[in-house]
Amino acid sequence: MSMNSFGHLFRVTTWGESHGPALGATVDGCPPNVPLDEAMLQQWLDKRRPGQNKNMTQRNEPDAVKILSGVFEGKTTGTPIQLMIENTDQRSKDYGDIATTFRPGHADITYYQKYGNRDYRGGGRSSARETAARVAAGGIAREAIKMLVPGVEIKGYMVAMGELDIDRSKFDWDAIDQNDFWIPDADAVQQWEDYLQGLRKEHDSVGAVVEVVARGVPAGIGAPIYAKLDTELASAMMSINAVKGVEIGEGMNAARLKGSENADEIFRGNDGAPVYSSNHAGGILGGISTGQDVVVRFAVKPTSSILTPRASIRKDGSPAEVITKGRHDPCVGIRAVPVGEAMMACVILDQLLLHRGQIGENQGTIG
Amino acid sequence: MSMNSFGHLFRVTTWGESHGPALGATVDGCPPNVPLDEAMLQQWLDKRRPGQNKNMTQRNEPDAVKILSGVFEGKTTGTPIQLMIENTDQRSKDYGDIATTFRPGHADITYYQKYGNRDYRGGGRSSARETAARVAAGGIAREAIKMLVPGVEIKGYMVAMGELDIDRSKFDWDAIDQNDFWIPDADAVQQWEDYLQGLRKEHDSVGAVVEVVARGVPAGIGAPIYAKLDTELASAMMSINAVKGVEIGEGMNAARLKGSENADEIFRGNDGAPVYSSNHAGGILGGISTGQDVVVRFAVKPTSSILTPRASIRKDGSPAEVITKGRHDPCVGIRAVPVGEAMMACVILDQLLLHRGQIGENQGTIG
Amino acid sequence: MSMNSFGHLFRVTTWGESHGPALGATVDGCPPNVPLDEAMLQQWLDKRRPGQNKNMTQRNEPDAVKILSGVFEGKTTGTPIQLMIENTDQRSKDYGDIATTFRPGHADITYYQKYGNRDYRGGGRSSARETAARVAAGGIAREAIKMLVPGVEIKGYMVAMGELDIDRSKFDWDAIDQNDFWIPDADAVQQWEDYLQGLRKEHDSVGAVVEVVARGVPAGIGAPIYAKLDTELASAMMSINAVKGVEIGEGMNAARLKGSENADEIFRGNDGAPVYSSNHAGGILGGISTGQDVVVRFAVKPTSSILTPRASIRKDGSPAEVITKGRHDPCVGIRAVPVGEAMMACVILDQLLLHRGQIGENQGTIG
Amino acid sequence: MSMNSFGHLFRVTTWGESHGPALGATVDGCPPNVPLDEAMLQQWLDKRRPGQNKNMTQRNEPDAVKILSGVFEGKTTGTPIQLMIENTDQRSKDYGDIATTFRPGHADITYYQKYGNRDYRGGGRSSARETAARVAAGGIAREAIKMLVPGVEIKGYMVAMGELDIDRSKFDWDAIDQNDFWIPDADAVQQWEDYLQGLRKEHDSVGAVVEVVARGVPAGIGAPIYAKLDTELASAMMSINAVKGVEIGEGMNAARLKGSENADEIFRGNDGAPVYSSNHAGGILGGISTGQDVVVRFAVKPTSSILTPRASIRKDGSPAEVITKGRHDPCVGIRAVPVGEAMMACVILDQLLLHRGQIGENQGTIG
Repeated sequence: MSMNSFGHLFRVTTWGESHGPALGATVDGCPPNVPLDEAMLQQWLDKRRPGQNKNMTQRNEPDAVKILSGVFEGKTTGTPIQLMIENTDQRSKDYGDIATTFRPGHADITYYQKYGNRDYRGGGRSSARETAARVAAGGIAREAIKMLVPGVEIKGYMVAMGELDIDRSKFDWDAIDQNDFWIPDADAVQQWEDYLQGLRKEHDSVGAVVEVVARGVPAGIGAPIYAKLDTELASAMMSINAVKGVEIGEGMNAARLKGSENADEIFRGNDGAPVYSSNHAGGILGGISTGQDVVVRFAVKPTSSILTPRASIRKDGSPAEVITKGRHDPCVGIRAVPVGEAMMACVILDQLLLHRGQIGENQGTIG
Repeated sequence: MSMNSFGHLFRVTTWGESHGPALGATVDGCPPNVPLDEAMLQQWLDKRRPGQNKNMTQRNEPDAVKILSGVFEGKTTGTPIQLMIENTDQRSKDYGDIATTFRPGHADITYYQKYGNRDYRGGGRSSARETAARVAAGGIAREAIKMLVPGVEIKGYMVAMGELDIDRSKFDWDAIDQNDFWIPDADAVQQWEDYLQGLRKEHDSVGAVVEVVARGVPAGIGAPIYAKLDTELASAMMSINAVKGVEIGEGMNAARLKGSENADEIFRGNDGAPVYSSNHAGGILGGISTGQDVVVRFAVKPTSSILTPRASIRKDGSPAEVITKGRHDPCVGIRAVPVGEAMMACVILDQLLLHRGQIGENQGTIG
Repeated sequence: MSMNSFGHLFRVTTWGESHGPALGATVDGCPPNVPLDEAMLQQWLDKRRPGQNKNMTQRNEPDAVKILSGVFEGKTTGTPIQLMIENTDQRSKDYGDIATTFRPGHADITYYQKYGNRDYRGGGRSSARETAARVAAGGIAREAIKMLVPGVEIKGYMVAMGELDIDRSKFDWDAIDQNDFWIPDADAVQQWEDYLQGLRKEHDSVGAVVEVVARGVPAGIGAPIYAKLDTELASAMMSINAVKGVEIGEGMNAARLKGSENADEIFRGNDGAPVYSSNHAGGILGGISTGQDVVVRFAVKPTSSILTPRASIRKDGSPAEVITKGRHDPCVGIRAVPVGEAMMACVILDQLLLHRGQIGENQGTIG
Repeated sequence: MSMNSFGHLFRVTTWGESHGPALGATVDGCPPNVPLDEAMLQQWLDKRRPGQNKNMTQRNEPDAVKILSGVFEGKTTGTPIQLMIENTDQRSKDYGDIATTFRPGHADITYYQKYGNRDYRGGGRSSARETAARVAAGGIAREAIKMLVPGVEIKGYMVAMGELDIDRSKFDWDAIDQNDFWIPDADAVQQWEDYLQGLRKEHDSVGAVVEVVARGVPAGIGAPIYAKLDTELASAMMSINAVKGVEIGEGMNAARLKGSENADEIFRGNDGAPVYSSNHAGGILGGISTGQDVVVRFAVKPTSSILTPRASIRKDGSPAEVITKGRHDPCVGIRAVPVGEAMMACVILDQLLLHRGQIGENQGTIG
């Protein structure tokens, strides 16, 4: 069992630290004959990449992904695909101070307590740079899904950041890709930017909620109980650094609803397939997809790497006041958007493969 | 890979339907020499058992657990422990109507779409009865934890139900076990009961939020990234029927906080070990326990088995109006409390074992 | 990870000791809609059952299997199938002497060294009775294979026992099921029986080689390297109690051959599909099935439970002379035949499911 | 589940093809604080490396291993270790002929049948070059074992090659590392060399048997039944390319022995620990180590890449006569020696970690 892997049949293992020579992902179980090249993956990495605009860390890395194995003559072979991203812009000197001090809210202290040893340069394995490898792997998943089930569309967007929430009545799917915050409302962009720049000036950071939707997922993927599609998604999203909450459909709000409000009523659609009056369930009933949009949300905590001084201790137990210099995002939630999309893509592909492997062609038909 | 299992080294596989001859759990990986008998498990099953009071389903089953293997002369042997609970009060006739109709908000339709086949008696595998097996397995985990790390205490309680929330200023740990709702506030019990009886009379149901806390968990268990303790807990809780959201520490609210508010400051305790000024992180930093209380919350949706008529369809696509007779809890969240505790116990034991298996004795010491 | 499980998508976990109340298997991942009832499984258990003839232990148990879950209206539902076999003929008193003494060649000493605790009644978990659960699970696998790929035939037979070997020139597939030794040569039965009765009179036991063949397996199942079909079979067969060697095709003899002798030449068959001039490879090239017979052999060591006195020690280190009374097979290899068949069935089903799950419909066609 | 991984807690996933840019291994689960650098791994790769002498392929590659992650300041951190070996001497043109022809005895045809696609350059994933990654990973396992249990020694050697067998009466442990065949008898080296050169001149190849021994392994590692140490070793060795048989201790010969011959008698040693009169069991009873030498043997088939013409077919079904040019070992068994050692090291480390994780400190003591 690998503690750095996710997925069952489509299995991704990420490796690497932010300040080592490289990081990447070992992707095992991708079906053969999926058209694949580096450019197909690079587009998603570019979306996640730091240094793109003033709302992100100014660390500037090309994050160029190389495919080292598993692809031959432009197609996957069915053998492991090794993805490598070299680290090129490592200013390790920025991190020297924290070799012996534990930053509050970071993994520093617990890594040390667990391993008695840690790569303190940029957080080592706990760095958000690890998510670049996920994004690349998610790009593979997207291409494989395209081959297996054409028409699936996966999109993530922010729905909240600190005090701000999106206005769902203005939801615009097409606006998402056209602003730095990946929000579905072009009119709100200026407000979000002002809010974030205000926080940056205060040397502070803020949390966010990201929502990821998969459209076009066929009914019948997932499984009951321990392998609920809800569980797979919760696990995938909670595994992202800094995520502390995950919701499917109504999520935590389901606790506030009555049974008569929450259950989505079912009707016969024009093509005979079931249609639903609503989607409180987030596209998943009993752990299995309904054919509606699959909807997951997750909360990203504010980064703890801030310039505001905070009380902490050193390895020897002595008190320390910590200010984290270096180049950090005031809202890491922004960059979590493509990461959430990648995780959704990986889960959907994995479940499509599992469904084939466990069921075959025996799905029930309705109508 | 079993789709009906959870855990890595302490691995629990549940089996059985609500209306078959029996259900149970196969528990593999329990350390040897743990004192164990059926009475130790029965106490937790009794806590979860239906028919205890008027806030629960009136189905009345003794839920008596039998140990079929893995225990010899009062101690575990290290081999698989088979737990069996016979189903004794199955009124299958109550469910006859729904053999061809899909109840809205239930797994009926998706099970059929996936498998082309389902045990419609009481929901088969999707029945909340499955959780009895988890509770029994959790009882084993509690005993094993006791042997490995004395002093760990695990308790679950409701924190919200529909419109009601607990008042945290009146939090009383000892009150929890003394009321039907497992709420930490004796004074609020009457209000909760009135609210629930009102819903019952309206033939409706309601959701709930359950919080589970583990006290005394040592620092250093869990792992970075994909095997974050947060992830393991999210996965465990989301796998419970009807759960649609999971939070660690601040949970979804972390999105609303600034970095300066969220990071828990660290100080040197009297015994040299770190102490924290707060616990926004829910006892987990970078996926690894800090030694603080481990805090998880989950939302249980309202049961969809209600007497209020709802629109649906039949297998042949024809419309149907569904009223679910049978004996159902107006708030399944109440019975989810001991289930959440059991899942917490299983996760903590599994992580204790993994920590030994991956690390040995090399933890870093501070101060 | 369960230490008592095998298989990936078709996953079998056995549980139970020879002298507890029951033993069985939890079977997860069986496809839905496979026709199944207890009688279909009982036929294979009856084949393995002790007490049938004088070449076997005289312990007499009906070994009646019960299906506790996962089957509804005569078909599998896709959820876990629990199989239970109650232990009815346990003469525990026969084993009292060995509670503190370690039998040479048995698991007694190592179980104690590992667990500090063991169920000494009949060897507990190390008893050959555990294989009854495998045989029942294998019966499920046979039915599922039948549904997925009609025409697969799986048969095991003895090819050697002590000094005796079968004469391959007289190989008779149909004779196998018609003698107590499952040997493919009716004329040799008397000789085998005389040999074994001679050993029984000497209070001794003897080893055996069992060969299992699967006919009609389609080309393309298995995987390269770590998941070679050879590896899966080796793992399955070596996991049977008392097995100490496994061979695929030529097996150990491959070391004696030249490349020009060993490689099976390939020709175009009448239907366009490849045909081979020979089957040194045992139906597996590069870990993947060729469409030829899949051939595996395994050696079963002689049982160590004999009436001939052997030197050993007790828990306290003092010397002991051990004679194992009780009812034991002079050649456990005989009963290993249906067990080997069951393991083959489980592996083939698992690989058929995996192939679907990893590949889909993209197999290459030839000719 | 990764089809390209092995191990449970110490988990190795290899990746890469013989003619891609690089190959390597992702090693997850190595304990932290193990001293490690590239030179420690390179020594084992140098042992396996082609081009060293005239008994091996003349392909000449430095096989220089790079550590890309998981090591900081000369010690492992507990996070994934990525090992990369760049392919520098790829004469792809040698392989052009076989793009559409299937070599008899190779994975060519089955890869194509499974995947509909294959990297025909040098066999792609089926190339013996994949084993370089195992050897590097095995080097990590050796260092970790050294830290956890000092004094374990792992050595592999050839015991048979075609018609030749070692003379066990002349067994010399120290001679093994001093000849090109890794045989434990310096006097036999010339004979082995003459035999192999004769085969090379005949444009043929030959199989071999390799034995690997682990000395100093503590009693109590392994597990009953499906996770027998025998099973783990069988699985590990059978996963090596071209291996078709695996034996533990007496192996296949156990079938020829009587119970009175096979069971190793037990005595009390001078230090109170058990000693055995013999080691027919190969150091493993009931799947658990006895503390004796752990002994495994495996047969490597002769390489099918020979210059002797063999009948085959092309993708289109037309007949072809195949001569494999390129640079190939006349006996790949020689290079399998360090690979077998590496697999043994990986299994032993994994089992040591599992034992800690499942048992803790509860081993039984004797005497």
